[in-house]
Amino acid sequence: MALAYDPLFISSEKPAMEVNSPPPAILTQDELKRIAAYKAVEFVESGMVIGLGTGSTAKHAVDRIGELLRQGKLENIVGIPTSKKTEEQALSLGIPLSDIDAHPIVDLSIDGADEVDPDLNLVKGRGGSLLREKMIEGASRKFVVIVDETKLVKHIGGSKLALPVEIVPFCWKFTEEKLRQLFEGCGCVAKLRREMGKPFVTDNGNYVVELYMEKEMGDLRAASDAILRLPGVVEHGMFLDMASTVIVAGKLGVTVRNKDEIS
Amino acid sequence: MALAYDPLFISSEKPAMEVNSPPPAILTQDELKRIAAYKAVEFVESGMVIGLGTGSTAKHAVDRIGELLRQGKLENIVGIPTSKKTEEQALSLGIPLSDIDAHPIVDLSIDGADEVDPDLNLVKGRGGSLLREKMIEGASRKFVVIVDETKLVKHIGGSKLALPVEIVPFCWKFTEEKLRQLFEGCGCVAKLRREMGKPFVTDNGNYVVELYMEKEMGDLRAASDAILRLPGVVEHGMFLDMASTVIVAGKLGVTVRNKDEIS
Repeated sequence: MALAYDPLFISSEKPAMEVNSPPPAILTQDELKRIAAYKAVEFVESGMVIGLGTGSTAKHAVDRIGELLRQGKLENIVGIPTSKKTEEQALSLGIPLSDIDAHPIVDLSIDGADEVDPDLNLVKGRGGSLLREKMIEGASRKFVVIVDETKLVKHIGGSKLALPVEIVPFCWKFTEEKLRQLFEGCGCVAKLRREMGKPFVTDNGNYVVELYMEKEMGDLRAASDAILRLPGVVEHGMFLDMASTVIVAGKLGVTVRNKDEIS
Repeated sequence: MALAYDPLFISSEKPAMEVNSPPPAILTQDELKRIAAYKAVEFVESGMVIGLGTGSTAKHAVDRIGELLRQGKLENIVGIPTSKKTEEQALSLGIPLSDIDAHPIVDLSIDGADEVDPDLNLVKGRGGSLLREKMIEGASRKFVVIVDETKLVKHIGGSKLALPVEIVPFCWKFTEEKLRQLFEGCGCVAKLRREMGKPFVTDNGNYVVELYMEKEMGDLRAASDAILRLPGVVEHGMFLDMASTVIVAGKLGVTVRNKDEIS
């Protein structure tokens, strides 16, 4: 699962900011995720409307927000969950919840990502919640992405790992084949995501096709538009130019990268 | 309901081709629809895979195909219905049916349209089936559009009539407002389509927002991409550069326009 870790990516940054104390020499991937998540929650202020991400890294951030609310260190938070799963987690922690119909502007969203490139473009959605995540994170003034260092890639979508695309169930084989043809030149293989042998169904009642590329897709904006123009496609997992900050937890510390520092 | 009929649109054509005999002086709109539909079915040949449209005009074409099959004048037709409603109609007529998973290439589709511009760009979907129509008609070697003359417009989407957009139900108010903002400069009003007071639900379990513009949208391709980039959008009703032939039935006769004759 671990991708090649590109030290150049981190070393171009300011000195790593450490959380609490320097991390011990050997940290598990989950501990790195938790460190990044806690760092992100430092951006949260009382009174904010907060987009709550989905997945194993975001889960730590939601836990942390719940903890700070319980301790009275945060007040008057409104959480906007990006999935039914996160909604359940947040409710169990007593975080007041709403949605973007009631709060069309979100102050800050915190979420994990499956891949992050040097321009802070992301692949998301291997957790199956890409559509709601994209709606909510796209409505956010600030979008903080939290990852462990295994998620850093030189080119998103060219990592030979899945680029998820949410599609309508109607004639999904047709849409799957159209997606494959679109990226035939990249050696694309397209597979319907399944769970227990049955098609995986998103919170919106849709299916997910995963694209595996042998080569980079080239112009990501053009690739995005080409995918979206296929009639059976609802949304894809490329989050282009959306992240304002990426927090990377690595074995050597925590690095914070801001979009506005990238030339 | 009737749009201004632009005589220039028709008069630039070859002499109108008439069906059977010259139409009587006064024809109802439904009779005109039937004339266009019957003309389109002349393109159908035995052994073809045929996309079957949805709506009051397409219904006549499906009826006619059923009739020709019963009479033995057509054989070995496979129909691909663009909606559950058309599926029911076709089944009742004994037309053998399949889908684009089994037949990813459709020989010919026949369907109505809500608006047709001089370049044969269309608005479709006021019948609520735009997504399946776009999938199937986009998979067709030939797409024959059948309309009565009230459907001719100079600019699609600028007619002050609805441009339908299929969206996910999740936070539909948010998506409705994003759509309105996108075309704010065109004086856009966005309204959720309702039926008996409740949101209209498509065959795919989605909602429909209708956009009413005071002014033209300008570059239709750019407008299309902008709509599709909104995360809550599934598909819209602009069918750009898809129609190969448009058959227009008017009080003065039937006109056939082919895409490849347009410079």
